Amino acid sequence: MHKRPQVVVVGAGFGGLWTVRALAGSPVDVLLVDRNNYHTFSPMLYQVAAAQVGPEQITYPVRSILRKIRNADFLMAEVKHVDFTNRVVETDGSEIPYNFLVLSTGSITQFLNIPGSAEYAFPLDNLEQALALRNQIFNCFEQAAYETDPKRRQQLLTFVIVGGGPTGVEMAGALLELIRALRQDYPTIDTRLARVLLLHSGNNLLPGMVPPHLQRYTLKRLQKMGVEVHLEAKAGAIAPDAVYLQDGKIIPTATAIWAVGVQADPIVEQWGLPTTAKSKVTVRTTLQLSEYPEVYVIGDLAAVQKDGTPIPMVAPAAIQQGTVAGRNIQRQLVGKNPVTFNYWNKGTIAMIGRNAAAAQVGKLTFTGFLAWISWLGVHLFYLPGFRNRLIVFFDWVRDYFFHVRSVRLILRTPP
Amino acid sequence: MHKRPQVVVVGAGFGGLWTVRALAGSPVDVLLVDRNNYHTFSPMLYQVAAAQVGPEQITYPVRSILRKIRNADFLMAEVKHVDFTNRVVETDGSEIPYNFLVLSTGSITQFLNIPGSAEYAFPLDNLEQALALRNQIFNCFEQAAYETDPKRRQQLLTFVIVGGGPTGVEMAGALLELIRALRQDYPTIDTRLARVLLLHSGNNLLPGMVPPHLQRYTLKRLQKMGVEVHLEAKAGAIAPDAVYLQDGKIIPTATAIWAVGVQADPIVEQWGLPTTAKSKVTVRTTLQLSEYPEVYVIGDLAAVQKDGTPIPMVAPAAIQQGTVAGRNIQRQLVGKNPVTFNYWNKGTIAMIGRNAAAAQVGKLTFTGFLAWISWLGVHLFYLPGFRNRLIVFFDWVRDYFFHVRSVRLILRTPP
Repeated sequence: MHKRPQVVVVGAGFGGLWTVRALAGSPVDVLLVDRNNYHTFSPMLYQVAAAQVGPEQITYPVRSILRKIRNADFLMAEVKHVDFTNRVVETDGSEIPYNFLVLSTGSITQFLNIPGSAEYAFPLDNLEQALALRNQIFNCFEQAAYETDPKRRQQLLTFVIVGGGPTGVEMAGALLELIRALRQDYPTIDTRLARVLLLHSGNNLLPGMVPPHLQRYTLKRLQKMGVEVHLEAKAGAIAPDAVYLQDGKIIPTATAIWAVGVQADPIVEQWGLPTTAKSKVTVRTTLQLSEYPEVYVIGDLAAVQKDGTPIPMVAPAAIQQGTVAGRNIQRQLVGKNPVTFNYWNKGTIAMIGRNAAAAQVGKLTFTGFLAWISWLGVHLFYLPGFRNRLIVFFDWVRDYFFHVRSVRLILRTPP
Repeated sequence: MHKRPQVVVVGAGFGGLWTVRALAGSPVDVLLVDRNNYHTFSPMLYQVAAAQVGPEQITYPVRSILRKIRNADFLMAEVKHVDFTNRVVETDGSEIPYNFLVLSTGSITQFLNIPGSAEYAFPLDNLEQALALRNQIFNCFEQAAYETDPKRRQQLLTFVIVGGGPTGVEMAGALLELIRALRQDYPTIDTRLARVLLLHSGNNLLPGMVPPHLQRYTLKRLQKMGVEVHLEAKAGAIAPDAVYLQDGKIIPTATAIWAVGVQADPIVEQWGLPTTAKSKVTVRTTLQLSEYPEVYVIGDLAAVQKDGTPIPMVAPAAIQQGTVAGRNIQRQLVGKNPVTFNYWNKGTIAMIGRNAAAAQVGKLTFTGFLAWISWLGVHLFYLPGFRNRLIVFFDWVRDYFFHVRSVRLILRTPP
């Protein structure tokens, strides 16, 4: 019996899923491996933290996605090591041989060796972290409701976001609007006392993402909403009760949110792969490893440049790379040369808040309601699952008209 | 300044919430205390475990419920002790003095000293337990999909429910239907191999709940669905890989579900309260403590009889007692005598599965589609929150017509 070539795809993020889709119907068996049994729609993690949507609305079972793809199967496992010489993926369960391998393990939080950041700050790069932050925000309000010491109450009601990239900007706006929506829930708290600070090390928010006039627009909108934006403010250390700035200032707070950025998961360095800045793996322009042409590295994990600068660590880039990796494997199967990956920047949108977003598509830029409704539309379109879209749409509409945040639970740990 | 009497209500279950509602607008300040910031609609916990509805659909923020009740506030805290002499509730945070106290802390799982039950069996009495069971069911399927040892695979696909009361019956039916719905998701598993066993120590399912012919109907429907019901089967011990029966039989399984029943939380015994069977607190017929007429004990925590038998530990009983406790406090405020609580059995319904339930209202009994649709209607009516009702209704309809279980995530622990 002739066995079909086995393609193992590690990581069910955007890159991994689109690789599998590109290989649907090809004469290969595809095995998608992930430690979770669901895909996380990461661009909306901050909305989970801000109780705008539920955690189950931005996740989708991998097996539901694979149902229609006959030649693909799923394995829930944690990849521990890859033996590139013998072409075997070693997981916490079984060992999986491969003919082709696509590594799409994504990124982890970048703490930059700032003391206390890994221990006390709340990152926002996966679902558990988003839920932990949501729990923290509501715990702070519950405590503040009965706190008699004004200093401690102010500390509980002060939220400091470190990092003025898209996650920091989006979280700042969403958190400020959440606090407004909580006014009715906490009659004993003067919610005007609550503060949202956004600390950014550079001079411009959303650096490298949108042109300068959109950066200024973003700054002004956030300030108008009530976010206290501090530019050129560098965090020096994080403690459970304060953020220490490098210039000596101390901001008392129970909640430091870490939106400084991500880096590739450095585990690949232990597997002997050549890495560059942010632990990204050096790849050929075809996304293959130089030494192992049967191995592709894509998404946040791959060091890919366009016109001399690294391409952004965003979902559209991972989707495009996944598609190209799948097609290149198809080409290799029939003896053709893999093609060069060419990043196509479809544009960027950053959500700021109600009726406010900053968008760039090609040379066109737009802001305000038009950019805001575009953000909602694009994310609703890409969000997997009809049920998820329906509930998210309902929640957004209700939040918009009635200022109601639906999912305000402090969830405890399942035993 | 004249201070209004303070009523402290401990527990935001059905009893506590209906006490607060009964006291709305009364010349008292009500403080509702619960360790969680949400109310759990416990009759639908088994549907969370069976991935029929999401955890956030059967929970509702307490503060949302209290919004319209001006004289009520909420404190999220764990009650550690009550000093009845000095009228103070001691929590993990502050100490709260009271003029009236309503204890409505509900029930916990009853393990009956069966070895291994507390360690290895999955109870189903709160939200974390329901999520833990859902995780376990899906973990078993993910492992079974790649298990090559047929014995171990069978063990992973065998689910044993201990206890043939309403929770056991409802979980058995829901689990069997979940397994059917998973056929498409796990093409490598022959789901006909999966077994659901329901062990019941007595001769009749749903004992004391419905009349004998409904018990027989329930048994037949479960068997027709494919549930293996074992009557007069007493669990002797639970291990991580098997259920040991008292008659010596061993059932290899990775998942023992503990539906044996509940008892009142025995912490009240440490507070010096007189207790009776199942740790329930002895109360006057007015629901007051004999020694402390300003203290009411209601719901699963109270030992209340009707016609010589204990009233059931169900939501309608707690709701009725909460209402009476509230009214009795109002009577005490104006110098009137508290009235006797009189349980009114509105009827019982147990869900079995698709188009199948067993219901009794007064002397009327009915089964099948009519009982099934009544169960859905009654639960949808009492489920708090318009959004929850909408999503649950959508999920039920979709499940009914398309056999789709919406929420199949294995959620990890928030850090």
